[in-house]
Amino acid sequence: MGESHIGRRRRLAALVAERDADALLVTRLVNVRYLTGLDSSNAALLVPSEGPAVLATDGRYARMAAEVCPGLQVVVDRQAAAALAALAEGTGARRLGFEAHDLTVERHEELKARADVTFTDLGRPVEDLRRVKDDEEIALLREACAITCRAFDDVLPEIRAGVTERAVAIALERRMVDLGAEGPAFASIVASGPNGAIPHHHPGGRELQPGDLVTLDFGALYGGYHADMTRTVAIGEPAQWQREVYDLVREAQRAAVEAAVPGAETKAVDAAARDVITAAGYGEAFTHGLGHGVGLEIHEAPLMGYDRTGRLVDRVPITAEPGVYLAGRGGVRVEDTLVVRADGPELLTTTTRDLLVL
Amino acid sequence: MGESHIGRRRRLAALVAERDADALLVTRLVNVRYLTGLDSSNAALLVPSEGPAVLATDGRYARMAAEVCPGLQVVVDRQAAAALAALAEGTGARRLGFEAHDLTVERHEELKARADVTFTDLGRPVEDLRRVKDDEEIALLREACAITCRAFDDVLPEIRAGVTERAVAIALERRMVDLGAEGPAFASIVASGPNGAIPHHHPGGRELQPGDLVTLDFGALYGGYHADMTRTVAIGEPAQWQREVYDLVREAQRAAVEAAVPGAETKAVDAAARDVITAAGYGEAFTHGLGHGVGLEIHEAPLMGYDRTGRLVDRVPITAEPGVYLAGRGGVRVEDTLVVRADGPELLTTTTRDLLVL
Repeated sequence: MGESHIGRRRRLAALVAERDADALLVTRLVNVRYLTGLDSSNAALLVPSEGPAVLATDGRYARMAAEVCPGLQVVVDRQAAAALAALAEGTGARRLGFEAHDLTVERHEELKARADVTFTDLGRPVEDLRRVKDDEEIALLREACAITCRAFDDVLPEIRAGVTERAVAIALERRMVDLGAEGPAFASIVASGPNGAIPHHHPGGRELQPGDLVTLDFGALYGGYHADMTRTVAIGEPAQWQREVYDLVREAQRAAVEAAVPGAETKAVDAAARDVITAAGYGEAFTHGLGHGVGLEIHEAPLMGYDRTGRLVDRVPITAEPGVYLAGRGGVRVEDTLVVRADGPELLTTTTRDLLVL
Repeated sequence: MGESHIGRRRRLAALVAERDADALLVTRLVNVRYLTGLDSSNAALLVPSEGPAVLATDGRYARMAAEVCPGLQVVVDRQAAAALAALAEGTGARRLGFEAHDLTVERHEELKARADVTFTDLGRPVEDLRRVKDDEEIALLREACAITCRAFDDVLPEIRAGVTERAVAIALERRMVDLGAEGPAFASIVASGPNGAIPHHHPGGRELQPGDLVTLDFGALYGGYHADMTRTVAIGEPAQWQREVYDLVREAQRAAVEAAVPGAETKAVDAAARDVITAAGYGEAFTHGLGHGVGLEIHEAPLMGYDRTGRLVDRVPITAEPGVYLAGRGGVRVEDTLVVRADGPELLTTTTRDLLVL
């Protein structure tokens, strides 16, 4: 992916120039990875407004950096960010941008002691770039989602009365790894019966029972990219109220997907789902935002909530995941990962949204 | 664990008073967990020098907080730290301690805008407390290590020529989960043949071969506590140089374990191992520090390196993990998790340190 990383750094350099800084010191590790391909627990990147970028990492990653980032100058130093700050000063930088949402107060003080430059909060220019994905990124997300859907199909026969939530979660995660995932994209949620009323329920020892709705929220990590899908299934024939709530959430989710077009306000996409649920009298039971961007992080920009500003554009992958949670009774959530496209949303998770009765 | 959490908060309050602050705003999530038992992705804790502590978290964790922390006041607010800073100001705090190694520059600015108090970097008082473990913590670490050792024994028959590094890593991680672990404590390392020269090798598609040394570095997560063990095994009869390097590293590791007594300087414990390796002419091939503390984090205080200051005390769990890495040829590392004790080190990982020939 060398070429695409060079392009990303070039676009970032333009943002650095626009924001009147001589360089940006990138310390957020996921941003370093986005700009270089290097997945390291200790690295930083200096991106000047003009001229080549410089990567710093420690000895453990030196060989990997040389392989992954051919042509990029690499400084090997355990104090990666401090080394680059000093380098920036030495090459004449006066205004050095930094990532105020990543750098701790302690490290900021250390950097100020190390380099006599004016440290300037430049906002989140790398996250701004990351929001819109290129073809390589979308291909990785597509594969992550394909693995997720295949794992669901493969594990479906094991989802039945008497099996614990935890066993189902482990089966899904193992199947995703067997299908090529690096691991689960996040801690899988399997919430059965009354536990379904807890959006982030941690799967435990409860055994699935006839009459349960079971919410499965999981996804594969592939090439660093995160899939995110939720399906709610029924163990045995569902009660009337369960089918009604399911149909409502599914309808709300469909409305959100249809609203996710370039130019749409994120809060309007949230509202498309929320209005359906509110009109049916369940507005207070939809206790979270509609969804979020996905990419190198499982939750990234744009956040899709009723109180969020911003507009969608072409090639932004998001989730749409409305839910209804009824304390003591259970819950339903239906979620897809999709890419906003000019010619209509591209659904990356394709598992049926019909209520499966197991 | 309610009683132990109350005791921890009481000891912390004394440190806050000693450091001349009215309260400490704890934002580091692992520290909040240590002080309350709550494992949340969004929480903060206000610990005044006198009087009861107050926990803040968002709606997703409100019920869990009430269950886990009975008797503790809980504020439900998505801006957990800001809510507590405002609360501190409202109750008359003037000097409010914060964790400068956790709080980002951006969040620090937000807090300053929210509360008219003097924010004061108090150092790392919670990490200072966490270094020495209580009985409950050591019991959890002991079980984490026991699971780790059992998994090694169970998977041993699968470690043979023709199996990939990745398959071995997955087998170890799955076995630990089957034995009750919450998951792996960190990304398992399986480094075979020449890959053994890379201390943090990521297990890949290389198949184990006769003549390989294979380094397995892995551990179980149990009750939030992290085990860490490394064993190096031989696939088929080892060459003379392999056996010599193995015996050397094993001897160095034994020397470090013996040196890990209360009162010992951490760098002296590192030196106990390093001197053995250096005397044999391999000093430059031992490219990292001896080890690190383990607990709620896989790497925590004390760090055990030749350039680290500080002394060990009773009840501090650490790892001792010397290694020799020979580029292009391979490597050996032997590591145990142990607890520093007045009556001699308690080894929590007990798998044989004899060179296993598989």
